[in-house]
Amino acid sequence: MPEFFKVATPEQVFEALSRFGRLGVETVPLDEALSRVSSTDIAAPEDLPPLPRSTMDGYAVRAADTFGASDSIPAFLDVAGAVAMGQVPGVSIARNQAAAIPTGGFLPRGADAVVMVEYTNPAGEGAIEVSRPVTAGENVLDRAEDAALGEIVIPSGKRLLPQDIGLLAGLGMTEVLVYRRPRAAVISTGDEIVPVTDAPPPGRIRDINSHSIAALVRTSGGEAEMFAIVPDDPALLRTALELALASADVVVLSGGSSVGERDHMVSVVASLPCAVVHAHGIAISPGKPTLIAAVGGRPVFGLPGHPVSALVVAQVFLAPFIRYLGGEELKHGPAGTRVRAALTTSVRSAQGREEYVRVKIEDNRGRLCARPVFGKSGMLSTLVKADGFVVVPIHVEGIPAGEMVDVILF
Amino acid sequence: MPEFFKVATPEQVFEALSRFGRLGVETVPLDEALSRVSSTDIAAPEDLPPLPRSTMDGYAVRAADTFGASDSIPAFLDVAGAVAMGQVPGVSIARNQAAAIPTGGFLPRGADAVVMVEYTNPAGEGAIEVSRPVTAGENVLDRAEDAALGEIVIPSGKRLLPQDIGLLAGLGMTEVLVYRRPRAAVISTGDEIVPVTDAPPPGRIRDINSHSIAALVRTSGGEAEMFAIVPDDPALLRTALELALASADVVVLSGGSSVGERDHMVSVVASLPCAVVHAHGIAISPGKPTLIAAVGGRPVFGLPGHPVSALVVAQVFLAPFIRYLGGEELKHGPAGTRVRAALTTSVRSAQGREEYVRVKIEDNRGRLCARPVFGKSGMLSTLVKADGFVVVPIHVEGIPAGEMVDVILF
Repeated sequence: MPEFFKVATPEQVFEALSRFGRLGVETVPLDEALSRVSSTDIAAPEDLPPLPRSTMDGYAVRAADTFGASDSIPAFLDVAGAVAMGQVPGVSIARNQAAAIPTGGFLPRGADAVVMVEYTNPAGEGAIEVSRPVTAGENVLDRAEDAALGEIVIPSGKRLLPQDIGLLAGLGMTEVLVYRRPRAAVISTGDEIVPVTDAPPPGRIRDINSHSIAALVRTSGGEAEMFAIVPDDPALLRTALELALASADVVVLSGGSSVGERDHMVSVVASLPCAVVHAHGIAISPGKPTLIAAVGGRPVFGLPGHPVSALVVAQVFLAPFIRYLGGEELKHGPAGTRVRAALTTSVRSAQGREEYVRVKIEDNRGRLCARPVFGKSGMLSTLVKADGFVVVPIHVEGIPAGEMVDVILF
Repeated sequence: MPEFFKVATPEQVFEALSRFGRLGVETVPLDEALSRVSSTDIAAPEDLPPLPRSTMDGYAVRAADTFGASDSIPAFLDVAGAVAMGQVPGVSIARNQAAAIPTGGFLPRGADAVVMVEYTNPAGEGAIEVSRPVTAGENVLDRAEDAALGEIVIPSGKRLLPQDIGLLAGLGMTEVLVYRRPRAAVISTGDEIVPVTDAPPPGRIRDINSHSIAALVRTSGGEAEMFAIVPDDPALLRTALELALASADVVVLSGGSSVGERDHMVSVVASLPCAVVHAHGIAISPGKPTLIAAVGGRPVFGLPGHPVSALVVAQVFLAPFIRYLGGEELKHGPAGTRVRAALTTSVRSAQGREEYVRVKIEDNRGRLCARPVFGKSGMLSTLVKADGFVVVPIHVEGIPAGEMVDVILF
């Protein structure tokens, strides 16, 4: 059996991945920009708000007229009129005057603050008393206070949230320039693999990896095209690879790159024009037999055939890489939110490889605990039962029970 | 100006929301089930694996034959053959025999464990030496060990992850029964609102809420239909509501439910047949002027018109409710992952209302800090600059600097 010829550390793999270029950009309608990644700094094309607006229901006033007002000594103001929504205020405010104003109403000329309705009382015909002072600008959103013409409101590389979509709407931006979604070709290989629709004959098993890896690509913001299963035949594998490389931004094979005699993946990939093998074998567990290569500058992942190893490697390297291609920064390690938790049980790990321990999160009255999931590492059900990973670093032999660890949630 | 007539606490609102029924279910193809929520416990229709399989490259052996093996005193075994992938093993193992086996290969008859290739050495013609003992079952996934016929592999109410899709693929489940996606009708109201495509004339502003609220519905797993803007006219509002109620699972209005004279929302909603107002006003900040109602058993949200208030209320109540309608448990409070962080600056809050403080997360060498975002509460840009919320409970007057708080990430 041949040896791995270029075992790399996770850091070396991320270093190689960081040298691939990002994808192109495209313009999408505002309402389709949600969860896409901005590809430029986005500047406000105008002031928001265009003029001062009230943020409360109440009375527009001159702040100076309310100085010293209290319950016992209220300020008395004449009501000069009311601001209607959707119209330029017809009223203007002189000394010791007020105008009723709704939330969102534009401030009338002369006013510089709004007194909340809760702190006013009617005081006879066309007058109010004000029981609390306001300062200039209080309960008012000044012109350009939310966004000023030319100000960067969304930085490049941000995955857009509902509030970002809202702000862009307020600024009248009906289209947004975003990174193109990475397109991944997902290919399962192996003589033993049958499509999920088939009943596997004895000795064969159903394709798991196309489905789980394609799903992971999609949760990472990419598009996945699932190719037909390729048998262990170098010519067929080469044909499938060429086809995939012609259309996809990244090709994700699974099932080869082991040390078995039948393993043609690395030799086929290496034989293609302009092929560079960055790693054949990674110092991790599970997932060592992984191939990371470039063919004509296009990234090619060769994941292990074992479904648990394939998905773990994909979570650790492919998911952050898909996010990177799609415009985010390249994060090292599994993609996902990190939470701190106390490890319930000591875990041991071989030095010289980074290990990914599947854990379940338990919430003991606000104190989070990470409980390693019981079961053989080859069981897919352990990934299903887990909430996330704990990473045991490459030069660490284990983590004692009770230690606080980062759990990367799925 | 009329008073709110039924101010509710957040707990009362969640209690009312929990009494709405879940939606129906539908069958979707496996590869479209990602991020959907299972609507039944899913049982394995067969054993996985169907027979014992190797989880390593190496040699299938009888564990008893390796007892006591070490580097200095290895066990010598005859190689009886090799297991080929995709075939029922033709070889069987007798005492002191081994068979080469790849990862994923089915165990030959007689074997009960696998020795990793790393712990073997060739020992002349057709023989190996084994330098480490294995126990029965080691490096083997037993029949049904990943999933046994009839075992519940995915519980009802789980949002499906890539590993779930993988396990279902392995079990040959080409279709999955999931909850239907909630359909929300999103309607902005107000004489001052113009579509985002228009340049607003003086006194008017662009529609923000349809876009931000529809986006939030989508990130919560729902479908959003954006209706045309409805002016402040009871008859037009009633028509739009009736149209929305005819097709949507939840109707989300914004722009009314304030105390302004122009506010027809609560009276129009309350006048519809079989209308129940659960809350008119919620003891929260921002977002007090919120309406929660049911019309003919259908939920109706009336969000404040102010874009910040509308989006905060939607994040706190609508997002978990959409997830609940779609099959998840009803979580109280903003949807999103919670992380613990130290508050950098004291925050004050009025007793008697729950407050949502926007914070930015800072990572100071692994110690997370939550820094309140500077700016008036009415600024949409403060939501854009924040990473999440800190909730100040209803009976608390504030949180001192340095205290550890839960930040709910957007």
